[in-house]
Amino acid sequence: MIALEQMKELAISSPLKIVMLIIDGIGGLPDPKTGKTELETANTPNLDHLAREGICGLVDPVSPGITPGSAPGHLALFGYDPFKFDIGRGVLEGLGIGFDVKDEDVAARGNFCTVDDSGLITDRRAGRISTEKCVELCELLSFVRLDDVQVFVLPLREHRFLALFRGEELSPEVTDSDPQRIGSAPNVISATSPEGKKMAGLANQFIDTAKEILSRHYPANMVLLRGLSQLPHLPKFSEIYKLDPAAIAAYPMYKGLAKLVGMRIIETGNSPGEECATLAHHYNEHDFFYVHIKQTDSAGEDGDFDRKVRAIEEVDNALPSLLDLKPDVIIVTGDHSTPALLQAHSWHPVPFLLYSKRCRPDKVTEFSESACVLGGLGRFPAVDIMPLAMANALKLTKFGA
Amino acid sequence: MIALEQMKELAISSPLKIVMLIIDGIGGLPDPKTGKTELETANTPNLDHLAREGICGLVDPVSPGITPGSAPGHLALFGYDPFKFDIGRGVLEGLGIGFDVKDEDVAARGNFCTVDDSGLITDRRAGRISTEKCVELCELLSFVRLDDVQVFVLPLREHRFLALFRGEELSPEVTDSDPQRIGSAPNVISATSPEGKKMAGLANQFIDTAKEILSRHYPANMVLLRGLSQLPHLPKFSEIYKLDPAAIAAYPMYKGLAKLVGMRIIETGNSPGEECATLAHHYNEHDFFYVHIKQTDSAGEDGDFDRKVRAIEEVDNALPSLLDLKPDVIIVTGDHSTPALLQAHSWHPVPFLLYSKRCRPDKVTEFSESACVLGGLGRFPAVDIMPLAMANALKLTKFGA
Repeated sequence: MIALEQMKELAISSPLKIVMLIIDGIGGLPDPKTGKTELETANTPNLDHLAREGICGLVDPVSPGITPGSAPGHLALFGYDPFKFDIGRGVLEGLGIGFDVKDEDVAARGNFCTVDDSGLITDRRAGRISTEKCVELCELLSFVRLDDVQVFVLPLREHRFLALFRGEELSPEVTDSDPQRIGSAPNVISATSPEGKKMAGLANQFIDTAKEILSRHYPANMVLLRGLSQLPHLPKFSEIYKLDPAAIAAYPMYKGLAKLVGMRIIETGNSPGEECATLAHHYNEHDFFYVHIKQTDSAGEDGDFDRKVRAIEEVDNALPSLLDLKPDVIIVTGDHSTPALLQAHSWHPVPFLLYSKRCRPDKVTEFSESACVLGGLGRFPAVDIMPLAMANALKLTKFGA
Repeated sequence: MIALEQMKELAISSPLKIVMLIIDGIGGLPDPKTGKTELETANTPNLDHLAREGICGLVDPVSPGITPGSAPGHLALFGYDPFKFDIGRGVLEGLGIGFDVKDEDVAARGNFCTVDDSGLITDRRAGRISTEKCVELCELLSFVRLDDVQVFVLPLREHRFLALFRGEELSPEVTDSDPQRIGSAPNVISATSPEGKKMAGLANQFIDTAKEILSRHYPANMVLLRGLSQLPHLPKFSEIYKLDPAAIAAYPMYKGLAKLVGMRIIETGNSPGEECATLAHHYNEHDFFYVHIKQTDSAGEDGDFDRKVRAIEEVDNALPSLLDLKPDVIIVTGDHSTPALLQAHSWHPVPFLLYSKRCRPDKVTEFSESACVLGGLGRFPAVDIMPLAMANALKLTKFGA
């Protein structure tokens, strides 16, 4: 991949527009009965048309064999080396619920857990308490007061919560309290650098107070914190690519990731049709649009092959309104595969298509995993997508003379 | 590629089993008469069946255009960057003859050579003396005594030998005596760090004594040493992948390489049938098996196209007993190509197949160079094979959230 510093040197502004349509988890595995994947089963005349006019390939989000989470998957799509730029677990949970994490905040992923009389962990998930119970306990913990620092305790799903510390001179350079195993006591949080000292003390104070408050709430009678982190300092899209980018995404995680790289977040309904309408409405305002479709991934995670097929068809149905805008460069791919058969993100490479007047079309006539194998772009890492998009939008000058 | 440190974080243990079948030098070039390579000429119904059920591709052992030796070829197969992990020539010769090289030993590759009356090299290979003569001369040199250090002088082929120094505080940080050209005197070995001082002195002492002993053995009247080296410190398979690996290989070089990465070496007969029987016998004892087939490479090196075809067919005949074990992940490839037409290792990418229930099958229906070009894995570097194998055996957790 080209280094971001190098990209900054080459990028120029142009009036041409790029639309990056991310169909989350679009890659799949074949249904043993039919031998066809979700995408191959779906009726997708519009995606097939784009594949026929454009150039296709298969993308490795992170590296062959590696199953990416949404954060590294998206960093790579946006051109950031996901091994180099790390988003801490605490911050990620904050983005996931749309909490307005500030630069100085330190966020931690929390678990309600069970400890026995001698303080040893017997269940790291407190018997997976209900989300309702979690909401109730988080309200109790919101009463914790720590000197000059504000604490936000926000429920996630089941036993999971977000603990966010807001104050001055907080550093994420501290260890976890979660020992990641049962039979041990929670670890005392310690600083991994002199800067982390204040944060370590506050976090331990929070945990001690939480323990008191929770003492009568067995099985959720203790908390574990991990992944204490601050917002990563990512160079912005405007700096690297000289783009004025916007994100059309309905789910907090993706809005959060887009915000990290400096995109304007446009509010939208969450169906593919509504997202395309949002795009049309704001099309004159930006030169780069990231459009995120969630339903495909959710269906894959639920192991619902048919629902994923329908979600793909819904995207295809919405596509004409996007094509009517005549973007100069259209990219369609995913941040990873989510085969319904595995009910999870997977390592399988993701079908990719790029349409522009300046691409070198291949012989692919449909948008599918097996067709993309023979695409003109071959198999390539996701970090190369942005340079390709930029080139096709005439936004990159020559490298060297 | 993913860094080994990162792999350590992601790897988890699972009961699933991986078999990596390495058919040494399997890639070839077409016979001009038929237009078919050795693999395309061979009748291989079982390999073709695996290719049909699995996913194929073409592997670059080290980098496009680069012809690998067995050591870098195998390091890459095992997931170690062959540009980063270097095995010194001396150590490699030791592994090649199955000498039990110890951690503290310094091994050197030796050449018998010819020098004239003024000590200038006239032939770096002493007229390629016979291996019998080499054996005889090595016996003479075995009488060299060096203070508190033991010297082993062991014959290799023709003018080549292994000189191995065993003692305390020996360091490989020394230069070569072999100037790699005629018309010069051999170089005096010097230390490249303070630690190398003792070793340099001993090596020069060995060379001086050898010169005296050999003075009446023209044309082999002098020795050249190069590649003085110690066993490399490779992180072990158990640490990186959390695997309990075993090697089924009949030839010393491959047993040596497998031992370096922490595999248990299982003794075996050297035919494909015997190796598969050995695999079956020990199948319950490990979760990863590296099985090495040598005959294909030997036939290629000898330029014997037909013998290489037969060697491939012999592997195919033995395959059903391997398939009966129902490994969860099966990989078939080579450490490099050895086209009979070139009578040597070559740079051509190597046919690759991976079979697992979780792979995304492609349209390849036979295992051959030309079919693998269109395989679903495309063309990829050998260091990505282990991550793929691990993913398909559900031995990798998600990267990031």
